[in-house]
Amino acid sequence: MTLDEARARDAADPLRGLRERFVLPEGVIYLDGNSLGPLPRATVAAQTDLIERQWGARLIRSWGEGWMDSPSRIGGKLARWIGAGADEVIVADSTSTNLFKLIVAALRHDPTRTVVVSEAGNFPSDLHIAEGAVACVPGATLRAVPREALAEAIDDRTAVVLLTHVHYKTSQRFDMPAWTKRAHEAGALICWDLSHSTGAVPVDLTQANADCAVGCGYKFLNGGPGAPAFLYVAKRHQAGFDNPISGWMGHADPFGFADPYEAGPGMERWRTGTPAMLAMGALEAGLDSIADISIEVLAAKSAALFDVFAGIGDALGLECVSPRDAGQRGSHISFRHADARAIMGRLIDAGVIGDFRDPDILRFGLTPLYIGYADIVRAGEVLAQVLRHD
Amino acid sequence: MTLDEARARDAADPLRGLRERFVLPEGVIYLDGNSLGPLPRATVAAQTDLIERQWGARLIRSWGEGWMDSPSRIGGKLARWIGAGADEVIVADSTSTNLFKLIVAALRHDPTRTVVVSEAGNFPSDLHIAEGAVACVPGATLRAVPREALAEAIDDRTAVVLLTHVHYKTSQRFDMPAWTKRAHEAGALICWDLSHSTGAVPVDLTQANADCAVGCGYKFLNGGPGAPAFLYVAKRHQAGFDNPISGWMGHADPFGFADPYEAGPGMERWRTGTPAMLAMGALEAGLDSIADISIEVLAAKSAALFDVFAGIGDALGLECVSPRDAGQRGSHISFRHADARAIMGRLIDAGVIGDFRDPDILRFGLTPLYIGYADIVRAGEVLAQVLRHD
Repeated sequence: MTLDEARARDAADPLRGLRERFVLPEGVIYLDGNSLGPLPRATVAAQTDLIERQWGARLIRSWGEGWMDSPSRIGGKLARWIGAGADEVIVADSTSTNLFKLIVAALRHDPTRTVVVSEAGNFPSDLHIAEGAVACVPGATLRAVPREALAEAIDDRTAVVLLTHVHYKTSQRFDMPAWTKRAHEAGALICWDLSHSTGAVPVDLTQANADCAVGCGYKFLNGGPGAPAFLYVAKRHQAGFDNPISGWMGHADPFGFADPYEAGPGMERWRTGTPAMLAMGALEAGLDSIADISIEVLAAKSAALFDVFAGIGDALGLECVSPRDAGQRGSHISFRHADARAIMGRLIDAGVIGDFRDPDILRFGLTPLYIGYADIVRAGEVLAQVLRHD
Repeated sequence: MTLDEARARDAADPLRGLRERFVLPEGVIYLDGNSLGPLPRATVAAQTDLIERQWGARLIRSWGEGWMDSPSRIGGKLARWIGAGADEVIVADSTSTNLFKLIVAALRHDPTRTVVVSEAGNFPSDLHIAEGAVACVPGATLRAVPREALAEAIDDRTAVVLLTHVHYKTSQRFDMPAWTKRAHEAGALICWDLSHSTGAVPVDLTQANADCAVGCGYKFLNGGPGAPAFLYVAKRHQAGFDNPISGWMGHADPFGFADPYEAGPGMERWRTGTPAMLAMGALEAGLDSIADISIEVLAAKSAALFDVFAGIGDALGLECVSPRDAGQRGSHISFRHADARAIMGRLIDAGVIGDFRDPDILRFGLTPLYIGYADIVRAGEVLAQVLRHD
């Protein structure tokens, strides 16, 4: 695709106006929205209101004027991106902390099952947290196996299968309904990490009959650096799962100030401490900024952007490690190259921001809200120059 | 003290200029800075820079330009308020989550000791979290006893004594060196919750020889609603204590992406997930806003404000539940009244913001950074009017 062709395609793109909703610096092609989404313009005004009116003027009174309910309210807004009910999602803490809560809860759900099964090479924090969680449940162990050995590793000792839906390096996507079914056939629960999926590809936890999930607010949802994460528990499990990090905000009556812990109803019990409102507000503004957009439309454009970038990679002789079938991947494209670290450094210097993932991966986020075809073609030209001088 | 006398005292107060550093709404006397500190003026500009330049323009590059180091950098700035070394404090997560980490770590420190001793009527989240933590360590139990039974409850089965330095209701303050010594004499560790102490009264963890501590950023440090909390581990314990919520940010090499967890050095291991930068930035701005102020000067003015308010309470026949000896309390004053809930509602309606604590406590924060003698006298006048009509 030539630059002129790409520009023509951008001009005809019904999504092209969405770019105006985001602050994007001059001279930068931002292919890292899968790591940190850019600043939505609406967030600037929302944060001013949050800081100057809600905090500055209303002070403590704001807790009764929208702050206290924010974890469930924002969770409710997020639910549509993951195919969940509004009362099945809560926003709190970090993805890692939420994962810890869920894995401990899942291990306690059926004490006769003691093994957490996950994928070797999964996003490291998932494995690190699983290590920490099994250490909190007597007899529990973590078994991380390569993807091809996963099906066999799920057996009658498996308490919970922990899978990241879209792989952070390769963009490979698990078939959520099929793997959920596989876990259930073995009598195990499944916990999905949706960090690289939410806002990137269609996700339907309800249709897949998933048990629990976590995910991240700062990537495709544009919730700001270190935005609060989310936590999903299917309605049918809510009464039987307990939050091991049992803080006052998850108590049935936080301001009753009773000594014994009593878990709150529904998703409320997954709260722990006081919500970090400045971070919560930015996530809410990010979600509000894209509330009118359909994931199917985004995914279709992402697939088209991928094809353009994959074609450029082929022409440059790069090894693409992401699946060519759009249904089997997320919304980023990765190439393997022995000099990946140095190449990415030079790309960033030239204004093409992607990221390097140790040891040899060049990773580029394809975020249709603000990336067009001409961006991909120009990024490809810079990549070609960098490779020529490598 | 008459209003004129109070105004004269304010005019002579060397701290009076500090009020200009904070945004305080017209018509409000804010006696709730012990619950949510007000907005520092400097925070408005700092957040604009954080949102528009660091996030909006620098995007992902900001992780290498101050974001990644923020937990230890902000911890280092906080250290002076608690008598800690800059390399003994980290800012992360919520107070509740940090407490969970420390109690599990303390219980694992010496498996022959299995009991967490705390005070009945401690801030509920401390007890709730301790319940959750003991459930993660085989054989561990929580023993919460009244203050007068604490000394006896600490024995050779005690793993860790968990005390809140300044009581959230009564303002009673534990003698930190004495109780630390008492725990150590029994061979136990001590963990201090400094939520109502930090920025309120002099704290010296080093001099007290304390083992570990947590505390809150959104009260006297003015870090914003739900600001990140802090966590302290004495240097001598740092190599031997491990974070049970072992997320990637606490890994020795977070971007090495290795499957096995390896704890980071020093305080780094207490990190779990990605720091919520919009909340971190506000806490840093809050700390920067008071970096030139000494806690001794603040505590002296707080004691004088207390005496004025206690005198008003005496004149109104109110039962003060806070100690009269400044050395035995924090920086708030509380009265017991059967109609406390209704009275506080009317005070707030009249612009005097304190808070009600179930079932019968009227609590008023005395925050010398922005509260003067005339504020207390005027608040007393409103309180007298409200009581007359009760």
